[in-house]
Amino acid sequence: PNDEGAMKLEYKGQFQLNMRDTGSEADGEGDTKEFNFRRNRLALMGAYGPHFGLYVQTEFGEDRNITPFLVRDGDESDFEILDAVLRFRYDDRFNFWVGKFKYSFSRENLEACEAPLTLDRSVLIRAPLVDEGTRDKGISIWGNLLEQKFQYRIDAMNGRNDSSSSPESNFRYGARAHVTLLDPEANHGYKGTYMGEKKVLTIGAAYQMENDVAYANTVTEDAVDYQAWTADLFFEYPVEEVGTFTFSAAYADYDLDDAYKGANFEDDVVGIYGEKNGGYVKIGYMLPNTPLQFFARSENWSLAEYRGIVDQEIDWYGGGFNYYFRGQNMKLTMELSKADFDKEGIFGGEKTEDFTTFTTQLQVMF
Amino acid sequence: PNDEGAMKLEYKGQFQLNMRDTGSEADGEGDTKEFNFRRNRLALMGAYGPHFGLYVQTEFGEDRNITPFLVRDGDESDFEILDAVLRFRYDDRFNFWVGKFKYSFSRENLEACEAPLTLDRSVLIRAPLVDEGTRDKGISIWGNLLEQKFQYRIDAMNGRNDSSSSPESNFRYGARAHVTLLDPEANHGYKGTYMGEKKVLTIGAAYQMENDVAYANTVTEDAVDYQAWTADLFFEYPVEEVGTFTFSAAYADYDLDDAYKGANFEDDVVGIYGEKNGGYVKIGYMLPNTPLQFFARSENWSLAEYRGIVDQEIDWYGGGFNYYFRGQNMKLTMELSKADFDKEGIFGGEKTEDFTTFTTQLQVMF
Amino acid sequence: PNDEGAMKLEYKGQFQLNMRDTGSEADGEGDTKEFNFRRNRLALMGAYGPHFGLYVQTEFGEDRNITPFLVRDGDESDFEILDAVLRFRYDDRFNFWVGKFKYSFSRENLEACEAPLTLDRSVLIRAPLVDEGTRDKGISIWGNLLEQKFQYRIDAMNGRNDSSSSPESNFRYGARAHVTLLDPEANHGYKGTYMGEKKVLTIGAAYQMENDVAYANTVTEDAVDYQAWTADLFFEYPVEEVGTFTFSAAYADYDLDDAYKGANFEDDVVGIYGEKNGGYVKIGYMLPNTPLQFFARSENWSLAEYRGIVDQEIDWYGGGFNYYFRGQNMKLTMELSKADFDKEGIFGGEKTEDFTTFTTQLQVMF
Repeated sequence: PNDEGAMKLEYKGQFQLNMRDTGSEADGEGDTKEFNFRRNRLALMGAYGPHFGLYVQTEFGEDRNITPFLVRDGDESDFEILDAVLRFRYDDRFNFWVGKFKYSFSRENLEACEAPLTLDRSVLIRAPLVDEGTRDKGISIWGNLLEQKFQYRIDAMNGRNDSSSSPESNFRYGARAHVTLLDPEANHGYKGTYMGEKKVLTIGAAYQMENDVAYANTVTEDAVDYQAWTADLFFEYPVEEVGTFTFSAAYADYDLDDAYKGANFEDDVVGIYGEKNGGYVKIGYMLPNTPLQFFARSENWSLAEYRGIVDQEIDWYGGGFNYYFRGQNMKLTMELSKADFDKEGIFGGEKTEDFTTFTTQLQVMF
Repeated sequence: PNDEGAMKLEYKGQFQLNMRDTGSEADGEGDTKEFNFRRNRLALMGAYGPHFGLYVQTEFGEDRNITPFLVRDGDESDFEILDAVLRFRYDDRFNFWVGKFKYSFSRENLEACEAPLTLDRSVLIRAPLVDEGTRDKGISIWGNLLEQKFQYRIDAMNGRNDSSSSPESNFRYGARAHVTLLDPEANHGYKGTYMGEKKVLTIGAAYQMENDVAYANTVTEDAVDYQAWTADLFFEYPVEEVGTFTFSAAYADYDLDDAYKGANFEDDVVGIYGEKNGGYVKIGYMLPNTPLQFFARSENWSLAEYRGIVDQEIDWYGGGFNYYFRGQNMKLTMELSKADFDKEGIFGGEKTEDFTTFTTQLQVMF
Repeated sequence: PNDEGAMKLEYKGQFQLNMRDTGSEADGEGDTKEFNFRRNRLALMGAYGPHFGLYVQTEFGEDRNITPFLVRDGDESDFEILDAVLRFRYDDRFNFWVGKFKYSFSRENLEACEAPLTLDRSVLIRAPLVDEGTRDKGISIWGNLLEQKFQYRIDAMNGRNDSSSSPESNFRYGARAHVTLLDPEANHGYKGTYMGEKKVLTIGAAYQMENDVAYANTVTEDAVDYQAWTADLFFEYPVEEVGTFTFSAAYADYDLDDAYKGANFEDDVVGIYGEKNGGYVKIGYMLPNTPLQFFARSENWSLAEYRGIVDQEIDWYGGGFNYYFRGQNMKLTMELSKADFDKEGIFGGEKTEDFTTFTTQLQVMF
């Protein structure tokens, strides 16, 4: 650090033992198990006085076999700077962020990766056609008004960043607002649980759009626009000697003008990150005097197309617990989950079938 | 750090909004815009007493669409250690550096990335056939003599490091010297401006060579040598209550024995980093009591071949300003520039056309 | 670091000038020379009190031409997290490690990379079919008993992590034990020399296995198991005013059920990291009052197949010295070595021939 600034370094790791009932052996039906890091990060925080701060975070992923939907050989490695954001703060009402950071859309994506209620965020709650599923590069203006009861955010970011192959080089614009009726949630990032330290009731909604984002027909150069909206509710309430109750739900709709009905659409307009709509419900209960929290989660999504199947539906449900040895700084999580597809079978050479995953995770932050 | 050493960590970021008048849409003629980091670095400095120091710097580049000459889809990511140098210092007259660092050739390449006069250094002022355009691995001996009026440098470095495909595995040798007539520039790195804190008049020259570096004819195994020379002048003078004036100019000639005239030459002997000669002129004016600096820059280069065109000429000129909120630690720069090719059109399936770029950059160092 | 934890950062670099008598020019017979980093690492250590620690280490390798056995163009770059281990310590008798770290098999692999006796560990003393040759992901339980005279280790780790293409998704299990008759070696990592600070006589042995690890015949889906064993001895004794003497030897056998005799075996079951057996002898002598240490090393390995040759034998021998300017924190090493193949010539289009390497290395740790 230079003379005037202060800087600190953190490590954040989530080490998992994953077991899935499919994906291995010659027929792809055998059980698969793997030790791996879900997150393996170094973060750097700096500040020059009260008005300017820096946040930089690296991520390293390596040889992941068991991914949210598929089992692979996982022979890859990626070290990257996940976040690099310059944070200017006039006061609580007006912040200006510049760099690479989480775009302002769904609440769940904005919940800290180290403080979810369930094992993790849903991989389905990511926007289409953005290089990083969860982050983007650009600028954001945000702040809290009305004694922190109201928060607003406005983003202008790259969105799809394929200049030479997409129809036009346009930015993606977004806006998000929330109302917090009990204790405020006044930061840029949310949490999936406050572990009984806050009473929270937050209702939020967001909208995003990018013009001429992809081709429904690459031959005739027929372009489509992207627009999406979401609404979410988060409620957490600690009752003395009884425990803390958490309820969270959201719905989101990601629209690409039905590009998947085009004669020669681009691959990226379909699949997990393509055109879709759906949502989740999460519930939690944390014991009053023991740092043990039980959770369950249910999601339902309609995908425009997935692995050769038009109008696929996914039901994903799971449950488990967090045990907090040192709060979020050292936590053990176990979760059993099932992904249930409406249509199973082999379509266009690709097999779709239900699967069950059991994960044991140790989280450590320094 | 170990008990005897001291170490510190720094972050250096240059976040840009780039706009160019070509490169997008189906015909490649549409405007392109992009948020991205030009530099995104973590640096580590250490010292064991006065005679030994360490400098390590990482760089992360990701998904760049708008590059100096071309617009791409930019779907790549590269995290690397850009510098890692062990610095032994007997005294100011004799330094011995070992590791990966900037080779001693052109002044502009040796100017700190965070202290240029204009938006950035020229991408054209890089040597051919060296893995990193700006750094190399090897050793350097350098020092200042005659009350720091004279500086010498001698390098032995990898140069082209393609052992199994180049004609011979030879080192690249280089030498550089300068004379500083007013205040000394006694470090290994120069600056593009001292913002009025120094009176500088420096004249420098350098030479580089590597034998049997590439094939002019890969079939007959006809090898060529590399040699290059450069001369540069830097003048900066603050006048009280009037402001600071900066003038900088250089010429460089990179020769590969006319390898591009060979029947089956290697691709790397031509293009932006191939055989060429040319130079730049930069001027600056900084206001006396406001940290605002205006600059302009003009370059002219003759390339042996560029995108199918033999003997292409590039005129590149631009201008803009730096506003220093906290010196180089927080700086806003805007620059408008134009690249003007002598021959435009489509040659060998590749299109060459003039383009204009407008860049807004925020630099932050911690 | 958070309020309760402490964290420190270290740099570890080994910069080399490598010279080999083969690998360059059109016929591949010319001398090759290269400056490069053998290791270029940043390490982060943290602790929450006496029972929990963290160790994270990054590695950056780039454009290496001269590798242990072959000379290439080396146009690659890899930044990764080499180690990331969460260390729980009940007491000296019981440690529980979780994450990515060195698996417990051969002593030489467990010797610290920065404290070998000779220039480096052998690349041949690595287990087959594990993503990182030297590290793996999983868990280990280990401790010292009987006043640190006895050490045990038990591992369960990924082993081969190619879920969708290997016969089954099984873990690799390992166990290692040693007896230290003089001063104890009570850590997880060994050293190749204690530079006269300890009297050591350690005898160790280990075993490793993974079921259904690869195909001897990918067509008939004929799977093989992996098992390996090793035994090693390390002796170091300082004699006052005479110097310190070091002797170290090991034998290892890596068995893949003769998969290389299969009709359609997988490539990875042969080669340097495939089925093999062999060992090394190392000797050292360090002067009593000067930090200068001479060493020599001899290895012999039988490989199931190497570059088209069945039952290849390699003799590898070398010698040199370490000069310790600041112990292992700043060390100069020179080593001359020769790899001697039992069968030389061109087999299946690949050339195998003896080669000689001369390496000068500067090691710095901060």
